[in-house]
Amino acid sequence: MINSKLPKIWYGGDYNPEQWDDPEIWNEDIRMFKKAGIDIATLNVFSWALNQPDEDTYDFTALDEHINRLYENGIYTCLATSTAAHPAWMARKYPDVLRVDFHGRKRAFGGRHNSCPNSPTYRKYAERMADKLGERYQDHPAVLIWHVSNEYGGYCYCDNCAKAFREWLKKKYGNLQTLNKTWNTRFWGHTFHDWEDIVVPNALSEEGEGNVSAFQGISLDYRRFQSDSLLECYKLEHNMLKKHTPNVPITTNLMGTYPELDYFKWGKEMDVVSWDSYPGIDTPVSLTAMTHDLMRGLKGGQPFMLMEQTPSQQNWQPYNALKRPGVMRLWSYQALAHGADTIMFFQLRRSIGACEKFHGAVIEHVGHENTRVFRETSQLGKEIQKLSDSFIDSRTNARVAIVYDWENRWAIDLSSGPSVSLDYVNEVHKYYAALYERNIPVDMVSVEEDISKYDIVIAPVLYMVKSGYAKKLEAFVENGGTFVTTFFSGIVNEHDLVTLGGYPGELRKLLGLWVEEIDALDPKHHNQIVMKDSWGSLEGSYHCNVLFDIIHVEGAEIVAEYGSEFYKGTPVVTANTYGNGRAIYVGSSGEQQFITGLMRNLCDEKGIEPLMETPNGVEVSERRKDSKSYLFVMNHNETKEELAIETEMLDLLTGKTVRGTVHIEGHGVMILEK
Amino acid sequence: MINSKLPKIWYGGDYNPEQWDDPEIWNEDIRMFKKAGIDIATLNVFSWALNQPDEDTYDFTALDEHINRLYENGIYTCLATSTAAHPAWMARKYPDVLRVDFHGRKRAFGGRHNSCPNSPTYRKYAERMADKLGERYQDHPAVLIWHVSNEYGGYCYCDNCAKAFREWLKKKYGNLQTLNKTWNTRFWGHTFHDWEDIVVPNALSEEGEGNVSAFQGISLDYRRFQSDSLLECYKLEHNMLKKHTPNVPITTNLMGTYPELDYFKWGKEMDVVSWDSYPGIDTPVSLTAMTHDLMRGLKGGQPFMLMEQTPSQQNWQPYNALKRPGVMRLWSYQALAHGADTIMFFQLRRSIGACEKFHGAVIEHVGHENTRVFRETSQLGKEIQKLSDSFIDSRTNARVAIVYDWENRWAIDLSSGPSVSLDYVNEVHKYYAALYERNIPVDMVSVEEDISKYDIVIAPVLYMVKSGYAKKLEAFVENGGTFVTTFFSGIVNEHDLVTLGGYPGELRKLLGLWVEEIDALDPKHHNQIVMKDSWGSLEGSYHCNVLFDIIHVEGAEIVAEYGSEFYKGTPVVTANTYGNGRAIYVGSSGEQQFITGLMRNLCDEKGIEPLMETPNGVEVSERRKDSKSYLFVMNHNETKEELAIETEMLDLLTGKTVRGTVHIEGHGVMILEK
Amino acid sequence: MINSKLPKIWYGGDYNPEQWDDPEIWNEDIRMFKKAGIDIATLNVFSWALNQPDEDTYDFTALDEHINRLYENGIYTCLATSTAAHPAWMARKYPDVLRVDFHGRKRAFGGRHNSCPNSPTYRKYAERMADKLGERYQDHPAVLIWHVSNEYGGYCYCDNCAKAFREWLKKKYGNLQTLNKTWNTRFWGHTFHDWEDIVVPNALSEEGEGNVSAFQGISLDYRRFQSDSLLECYKLEHNMLKKHTPNVPITTNLMGTYPELDYFKWGKEMDVVSWDSYPGIDTPVSLTAMTHDLMRGLKGGQPFMLMEQTPSQQNWQPYNALKRPGVMRLWSYQALAHGADTIMFFQLRRSIGACEKFHGAVIEHVGHENTRVFRETSQLGKEIQKLSDSFIDSRTNARVAIVYDWENRWAIDLSSGPSVSLDYVNEVHKYYAALYERNIPVDMVSVEEDISKYDIVIAPVLYMVKSGYAKKLEAFVENGGTFVTTFFSGIVNEHDLVTLGGYPGELRKLLGLWVEEIDALDPKHHNQIVMKDSWGSLEGSYHCNVLFDIIHVEGAEIVAEYGSEFYKGTPVVTANTYGNGRAIYVGSSGEQQFITGLMRNLCDEKGIEPLMETPNGVEVSERRKDSKSYLFVMNHNETKEELAIETEMLDLLTGKTVRGTVHIEGHGVMILEK
Repeated sequence: MINSKLPKIWYGGDYNPEQWDDPEIWNEDIRMFKKAGIDIATLNVFSWALNQPDEDTYDFTALDEHINRLYENGIYTCLATSTAAHPAWMARKYPDVLRVDFHGRKRAFGGRHNSCPNSPTYRKYAERMADKLGERYQDHPAVLIWHVSNEYGGYCYCDNCAKAFREWLKKKYGNLQTLNKTWNTRFWGHTFHDWEDIVVPNALSEEGEGNVSAFQGISLDYRRFQSDSLLECYKLEHNMLKKHTPNVPITTNLMGTYPELDYFKWGKEMDVVSWDSYPGIDTPVSLTAMTHDLMRGLKGGQPFMLMEQTPSQQNWQPYNALKRPGVMRLWSYQALAHGADTIMFFQLRRSIGACEKFHGAVIEHVGHENTRVFRETSQLGKEIQKLSDSFIDSRTNARVAIVYDWENRWAIDLSSGPSVSLDYVNEVHKYYAALYERNIPVDMVSVEEDISKYDIVIAPVLYMVKSGYAKKLEAFVENGGTFVTTFFSGIVNEHDLVTLGGYPGELRKLLGLWVEEIDALDPKHHNQIVMKDSWGSLEGSYHCNVLFDIIHVEGAEIVAEYGSEFYKGTPVVTANTYGNGRAIYVGSSGEQQFITGLMRNLCDEKGIEPLMETPNGVEVSERRKDSKSYLFVMNHNETKEELAIETEMLDLLTGKTVRGTVHIEGHGVMILEK
Repeated sequence: MINSKLPKIWYGGDYNPEQWDDPEIWNEDIRMFKKAGIDIATLNVFSWALNQPDEDTYDFTALDEHINRLYENGIYTCLATSTAAHPAWMARKYPDVLRVDFHGRKRAFGGRHNSCPNSPTYRKYAERMADKLGERYQDHPAVLIWHVSNEYGGYCYCDNCAKAFREWLKKKYGNLQTLNKTWNTRFWGHTFHDWEDIVVPNALSEEGEGNVSAFQGISLDYRRFQSDSLLECYKLEHNMLKKHTPNVPITTNLMGTYPELDYFKWGKEMDVVSWDSYPGIDTPVSLTAMTHDLMRGLKGGQPFMLMEQTPSQQNWQPYNALKRPGVMRLWSYQALAHGADTIMFFQLRRSIGACEKFHGAVIEHVGHENTRVFRETSQLGKEIQKLSDSFIDSRTNARVAIVYDWENRWAIDLSSGPSVSLDYVNEVHKYYAALYERNIPVDMVSVEEDISKYDIVIAPVLYMVKSGYAKKLEAFVENGGTFVTTFFSGIVNEHDLVTLGGYPGELRKLLGLWVEEIDALDPKHHNQIVMKDSWGSLEGSYHCNVLFDIIHVEGAEIVAEYGSEFYKGTPVVTANTYGNGRAIYVGSSGEQQFITGLMRNLCDEKGIEPLMETPNGVEVSERRKDSKSYLFVMNHNETKEELAIETEMLDLLTGKTVRGTVHIEGHGVMILEK
Repeated sequence: MINSKLPKIWYGGDYNPEQWDDPEIWNEDIRMFKKAGIDIATLNVFSWALNQPDEDTYDFTALDEHINRLYENGIYTCLATSTAAHPAWMARKYPDVLRVDFHGRKRAFGGRHNSCPNSPTYRKYAERMADKLGERYQDHPAVLIWHVSNEYGGYCYCDNCAKAFREWLKKKYGNLQTLNKTWNTRFWGHTFHDWEDIVVPNALSEEGEGNVSAFQGISLDYRRFQSDSLLECYKLEHNMLKKHTPNVPITTNLMGTYPELDYFKWGKEMDVVSWDSYPGIDTPVSLTAMTHDLMRGLKGGQPFMLMEQTPSQQNWQPYNALKRPGVMRLWSYQALAHGADTIMFFQLRRSIGACEKFHGAVIEHVGHENTRVFRETSQLGKEIQKLSDSFIDSRTNARVAIVYDWENRWAIDLSSGPSVSLDYVNEVHKYYAALYERNIPVDMVSVEEDISKYDIVIAPVLYMVKSGYAKKLEAFVENGGTFVTTFFSGIVNEHDLVTLGGYPGELRKLLGLWVEEIDALDPKHHNQIVMKDSWGSLEGSYHCNVLFDIIHVEGAEIVAEYGSEFYKGTPVVTANTYGNGRAIYVGSSGEQQFITGLMRNLCDEKGIEPLMETPNGVEVSERRKDSKSYLFVMNHNETKEELAIETEMLDLLTGKTVRGTVHIEGHGVMILEK
C-alpha cells in the first residue's frame, strides 16, 4: 500500500512551476490547488536541463523552493527524476545520447523521450541524477513517491544498441549455432558465422517500411532487447533511489496497451504501477475499463496510480474534443472502480507555449477558478476528500481472466500473412466487452499468472504458446476450468517457430480439433457462424470475418458451423470436454453479439453472475476490502437511467442509503458500500 | 508605373529559345509571336549552366542574339537572371550549394530551386551573375524589366543554414535568456545554455514527419529565417542590378498563397509584384480573385504583373484538364480586373523533352498556328492591343479589407491541437467569397496596413495578434469601423505565446466576450448557428463545424446561439458596440450561406453597395484611373446571362455603348468605361 | 526443347532441405514426393551463406547429399546458384555488396535480392560460385537445368552504380553534346559540361518521392542501365555455367509484368524462360492468361517453365485467401494451355520460421498427406504423369498480336502529366481481355517481333514509337493488316523526346488523323463513345474516361464521336484505310464492353474465329504440335457449364472421346486432342 503517508485517494497531477518564474503565479496556484482539494503535485518531470546546466553543476534550489512551498501548504510531492529529456548541451557534447531512428537516421536534439537507452553517457548521467535527487530529498517529508523518467518508449537503432544487442544475444543463446537454429537463418541465406555479422532489424535491413519483418526471430528479439534496455535504464534509477530511500515507493508512468514495451516485465520491477489514461471522445468505455484492468494486472491485482488524465482537452488527437460535463468525474471514478488509488491530472497549470499549450489543465490559460473545468475538478476533489481511505488498497475479485501477452502481439504483428487486418488488441477487447456489458469482473493476466483461481480463462488469438503454457492450460481445464481461445492460436512457440504436426499445435489435444487451413479474406467479406442448436440466447446465425479456420474435430463437440464458402457446414465453433472442464474454440472473428452470447452462456454455466443487472451503458464494478464490497455504478449514458437495488446499501457520495428502484443521472456515479 | 517604356498591357511570356538551337524555329517563333500580338518575352530563366560553363567563363552571345532578334521584331525582353537552378558543375565542385532537406538528407544535383540560400558559393555566383548581366544589358533598349531567379521557395536544413540561423537568433534576441523565455524552453527540458546547442527544426529534431512542431517558437523563427534567407538572396541580386540599371524595374515571380514565404515582407523589396497563377479546373474562381487581390495587396494596391499562366494545360496536377474554350481569355481579364497590368504565359513554345513537355504553350508541339490555343491567344493579343493604355496603372477602390498574415498561418499550422482540419486559407476564402459573390471590392491587407481608410475590416482566425495590432483594431472600431473576426482568434502573440487572462486575449475588450473553451470535433460533425432574431436575409439556422468556441458575452450582443451539444443555447455569433463602431465575432466555422448573409448585412449597414447586381457566376470588378471607372464584367458560367446596366457605358472590347438589359455570353467579358 | 532428359511436364518445385537438418524429415519428404508424382526439385536457392562460410571455403557436401538422395529416388534437380542473397559475412567485410536505396540510404544486411549489381565483390563471388557449382555438378545426371539467382529485381543507387552509369552513358552517347541534346538538358539549366557532373536519378535528385521524374531522359536511361546491370550479373553466371555444361539449359525465374526489368532483353539471354505466377483471389483470370502469353512471347513463342506457383496460400498479400478447391489444378492447366511445359511450386515443404512460414507448400506444417492441398497436388501429379510428353514443346498459333513494351511503360510512368490514372498494363489488359473472352489466341510481342505473320496487331497506348517502328507498322497495314492503337500514342521517340509536327507523330499518316489536344479529367468523370452507325454488336453509346484526345481526321473514317464536353460531336474512334489494311484509333479509354465489341468486329472481318464458343467464364486455349491440336477447355466458374463440341475429340484427362453437348464441372478442365 503506497498511501500510508497520505491515506486517501491522492488528488493532483503534473505541475511545472519552473515554466513560470513568477511568485505571483505560484501563490495563485497554491490558492487554487487548495480550493480544488489537490494534495499531490508531480514535480521536476522535465527539468534536467534546468537543474544541470553542464556536466558538473547541479542546482536544485528552485526545486527545493517548489517542494517546500507546496508542502507548507499541505501539498505533497510526487518527485520525478527528470531524465525523460536529456539537456541540449549533452546532445551536443555526447552525441551518443541521441537515438538513431527506424530509418537509420541519427536524430538531432529535440522533442523528448529521445535518449538512446544504451548510451553510456545517458546511463551515467541519468543514474547520477537519481543519486543526486535521492541524496538531497531522502529525508524530505513532502516526497510521497518517486516518478522515474516519463512514459518510457521508442526504440533506438544506433551502433551502441547494435553492440549491446549482440551481447544480449550471446547471453541468451550462448553460441551462434543455437541462434541460427532459433532464428531459422537457413531461410534466405541468413546463416551467421560471426556475432559481428548481426545487424539491427529496421527499415534498412529486415523490417521494410512498417511493422513487419523478413525475420520474425530477429525482430522479436530486438523488441525484447529494446524493452529490456529501457527497463535497464529504469532499474538503474530505481536501484539508486532505493539505496537512498528504501521506504519511498518508486514508479514510472506507463501507457496502457502501448505496443513497444512488455509491461508485465516492467510491473515486476516497479513498486507500484502508474499509468496515463487518454481516451478520446470515440474510445469505447469498455476499452478504457479493460486497459485499467490490464494495468492492475501488471502487479497481480495490486492497486495502481492514475498518474495522468486530462481535465478536459487533449492536444495531440486529430480532433481534440472537450470532455463533456460530468465525464471527467465519471471517468475518474471508472479508474477508481478498476483499481486506481489516485486521481491525477496532466496538468495542473496549462503551458503558455510549445506543443502542449492546447492541452487542458486544472488551471486554464484564463488563470482563474470560474471555469467549468475548475468547477468540475474541485467538486471531484471535495468528493474524494470525503471518501477518505474508505476503499483504498482494496482488491477486485474476478472469476474470469483474460490473457494478454505483449510478445504474442509482437509476433502476430511482425508476421507476414495471413491477414493485415488481424488486430490483437481488438480481438481481446471483443471478449472483454462481452463481460463488461454484463458487469462481470475480469482480471487481465499474463501467461505467468496462476490461473487455477479462475473459473474461466480466455486467451484470444493465442498465436504464441510459450514453453509450459499448454500444460498449464490443460491442468486448468482438467480441474474443471473453462478455457476459451480463438482462430490463429497455438501456431508458434516463443521464438515464432511453428509447432509442427498440425495447428493449434500444443493446444490440439486440449481443444480436441485440428485446423487444417486458415482462410483469409478482406474483412469486408463476411461468413456466418451458424449455431447447430440454440444455446442460451445464441441461436441462428452471426457474422464473422478476418480469418476462417478450417477445422476437423478430434473429440470436440461442434457448436456452430460456417454458413458459406467451400467450408460451409464445417465447424467454426467447438467445445471439448477435457477432464472436468471444457475448452472452447472460436474459429473466426465473430461479431460482438455472438461473443457476448457465448460469454453469457459460459458464465451461466459457472454460476458467474453480474454484479448487478443494469441498462445498457450503465457499468458496475466492484472493489473489496476486508469484508466490505464497494460497488461503483457508473452511467455512461447522457440520459437518466433506472436501476433496481436489491439489498440496502450506502452511497458513499451522498451518504444516503439506497434500495429498490433508483435513478441515476446521465454521467452519474454511485459508490455503494455493502 | 512599370509600363512607361511600353505603355500597354504587356503580352507574352516565358520563352526558352536556347532549348532549340535551330534558326528556323526561332524565325517561326517570331512570325507567330507577331501574329499573336506578343510584345514581351521572358528570357534566360534557366540558362545558368549554359551561360556559365565553369567558374570563370561567361558567354552571353546566344542570349545577345535572342534579345536582339526579338527586339528587332518589336518584342521586348523581361530578362531573368537564371539563378533558380545552379549548374551541375557547381554542385559537384561546391556541394555547399546543395540543400539538406527536411529529412536531413543532403540532396544531389537535380530538379530546380535547389540552392541553399545560405551557401556562400551560391550567393557569390548568383550575385556575380546579376553583376555580369547588369553590366552587359544596362543600356539595351529591349530590357523592360528584370526577373530575378524564379519562384523562390523551399527550405534548407544544412550546417550553413544552422550557423546562419544562430546568427539570426543572436541578432533578434541578443541573449540566450531572452530566447529561452520567448521559446518557453523550460517546457520539455529545452533550456539552451549555449548558442551552439540550437539545431534546426526538422524531421530529425522538432517537426516529426509533417507540418507540425514540438516547439512552435523554434519552428516559427525558422520559417521567418528561411523566408528571410531567400529574400536576402533576392536582395543581393536586386541591389546589384539596381547599381547598373537604377531605372529598370526589378521583380521576381511569386506564387499566390504559397505557404513558405512571407510575401508581405518580399513585396517591400520588389519594384513591382509579379506572380504565377495556376488555377485548376476545380479551383473556385473566387479563390483566384482573392489571390490576385492578395498579390495586389503586397505593395498596397499597386498594379502587379501576371507573370505566368498556362494557355491551356498544366502538367503537374493529378489530372491536367484543358482550359475550356474562352476560359483562358476570361481568366486573363479576371487578372486585369483585379490589378494586373500584364498577361504573360508560361510558356511561348512547348518543350520537347523533360518534365514540362506536357505543359501547354502558345506554340504547341504541332508547331503551327491552327490550334484552338493559338487562336484564343492571338484573339486576346489583338484585344489587348486595342485596349492600349486605357486602364493600366489604375487602382482599385475597396471599402472592405480582409487581413491575411503568413506568420499567423504558420503559427496555426505548426500548433498541435485543437483540430487538424483548421485551414487558414479556406477560412479566409469563405469571407472573401461572401463579398465576391456580391461584387463588392476587397483589399487583402497585411497587419501593417493602414486600416483607417476602410469601413469594414475582416480578420478570420486572427490566432496571432502581433504587438500593437489590437490597439490598431480598437482605434479602427472606435472611429466607427466594423471589425469581424472568428473563433480561434486572439490566442497568441507573435512568439506563439498564449495571451493569458482569457481568450480572445488582447481582443477581448474590443469583442466584449470571453471564450472559455474551444471544442473540436471531426468536421463531419455539425452544430448549428441559430439566429436569435432574423437579421437581413439571415434567419433560422445554419451549419457550422471544425471548432466551437464556448462564449460568455461581456457586453456584446448575442446574434446567434448554438443549436446542439452541451453548449446549446450559448452564443456562437456576437456583435459588440465599441465606440462608434462594432466588432463581430463568429465563434465557429459557418457554412458559406451564413457568412454571405452576414457580410451582406454588414455592407448594407455601411452603405457598401455591389458594383453591379448580377446573376450567380457573373463577376464584376472595378479599376479606377483619374476620374474614370472601368467595370470588368465576367461571366464564369457556360451559359448566356442577362444583366441590367443602369447608366450608359462604353464596352471597350466592342467599342459599343451599352445600357438597359444586356446579354453576356457564356465565358464572356465586357469592360465598361464609366 | 528443355525436356529431353525428362520428356514430360516437369512436376515439382522449390525445396529447401537445408532448413531442416533432419534425416527423418528428408526421408518423409521423399516418400511424399513420390506419392505426389514429383520428379523435380529446385535446390540451393538461398544457400550461399551455408555453402560458403567465408571467402575461401566452399562446402557442398550437404548439397551433394540432397541431390543424390533425390536422384536415387527418381527426382531430378533444378539447380540454383544461390546468389540471390549474399552472406552476412560478405556484407560486413565488403560493404560494396550492399545497395544504396532510392532514398539514398545505404542498406544493411537483411532480406534478399539485396546485392548491388555493380559491386565488384558481388560480381566476383557470384561468378565464382557459378564456377564452383558448374565444375562440381557438370557431370551429375540429376541436374536438368540451372536456375541462376532468383527473381532478379530492384535498383541500386550507390557510387559504384553511378560510376558504371557514366561508363554506360559514354558508350551509348559517345560525347556529352549528344547526351545533352538527347536528354534536352537545356531545360532547367541541366547542361552537363563534365561526365562527372551526372548523378543517379533518385529521391535526392530528379525523382522526388515516387515513380515520376523531372528528367525523363535521365530516368529512362537509368532504368535501362539498371536492368542491363542485373542482366550482366545473370550473364556472368550464365556464361560460366555454359563453359562447364554447354548442354544443360539455363534460366532464371522472372515475374510477369514486373516493372523494373526489360524482360524482352532478358529473354534473349536465357535458354528458356521461366516465371513465378502469383495471382490473388481477385486477379482476373484473363490477366493471368495475358501474363503467361507475355512470358511465352519473351522467346518468340517457345514454351516456358512455370517455375513457381503456390499450392494454395500466399503470405505477402494483404489478405491471403486459400486457393479454392480445384483452382490450383485449374490454374496449373491454364499455365500449360498458354505454353508452360512445367508445373512447379513454391514450395515443397513449408518453412518453420521467418517471413514465408505462412506461405503454402505441398507439405504443410502438419507434415502428413491427409490434407486438401496434398490431395490436390498428388491428383494433379498423377494426371500429369499420364499426359506424358503428349503436348510438350508444342506451340501456339495466334493471328492476333498485342504489343507490350517495358520502355514504353517506363516512359509513360515517368512522365509528368497529363493524368496520374493512366495505367499501361491495365490498358493493354483491356484489349487482351476482349480477345480472351472470345477464346481467340493472342501473342504478346515486343516491338522487335516480326509482325507480318499476324492479321491484327494491337498496340495500346503506344506512347513511345521507337526508331523504325512506324515504318514497320505501315508496311504491316499496307499489306492488309489491321492495326489498332489508342489515345496517347505516337507521342515520343525512344528518348522520350516529343515527335514534333502534331500527334500522333510518326503514326499520323498511318492513322489518318491529327490529335490537337489531350484532355485529362478525374477518372470518375466519364464521357461517351457514341457510335456514328451501328457496327456489328456495337451501337449506341459507351463510357470512356482518363484521357480524351481531340481528333481531326485526315482521311480516317469516323467510327464514333464524343457525347459530351466541348468536343462533343468530334471523333473519338476512327478507322483509316491504308494500303490494303486498316488502322483503328481509339481516342479515349473505353469501357470493356466497347473494346470487346470492337475486337469482335475486327476479328470477324479477318475471319478470325474463336477456338470454341463457350459460356462466360469458360476459357479455351490451344497448343499445336506436329499436326495435332490440343484444346484446353477450362471452366473458371464454380458452376457446371454446358458446351457444344462439334467434332469428335479425345479428352486426354479422361481418355474418353467427346462430342455433342458436353458438361464441364465447376473449375473443371478438359484437354481435347484433335
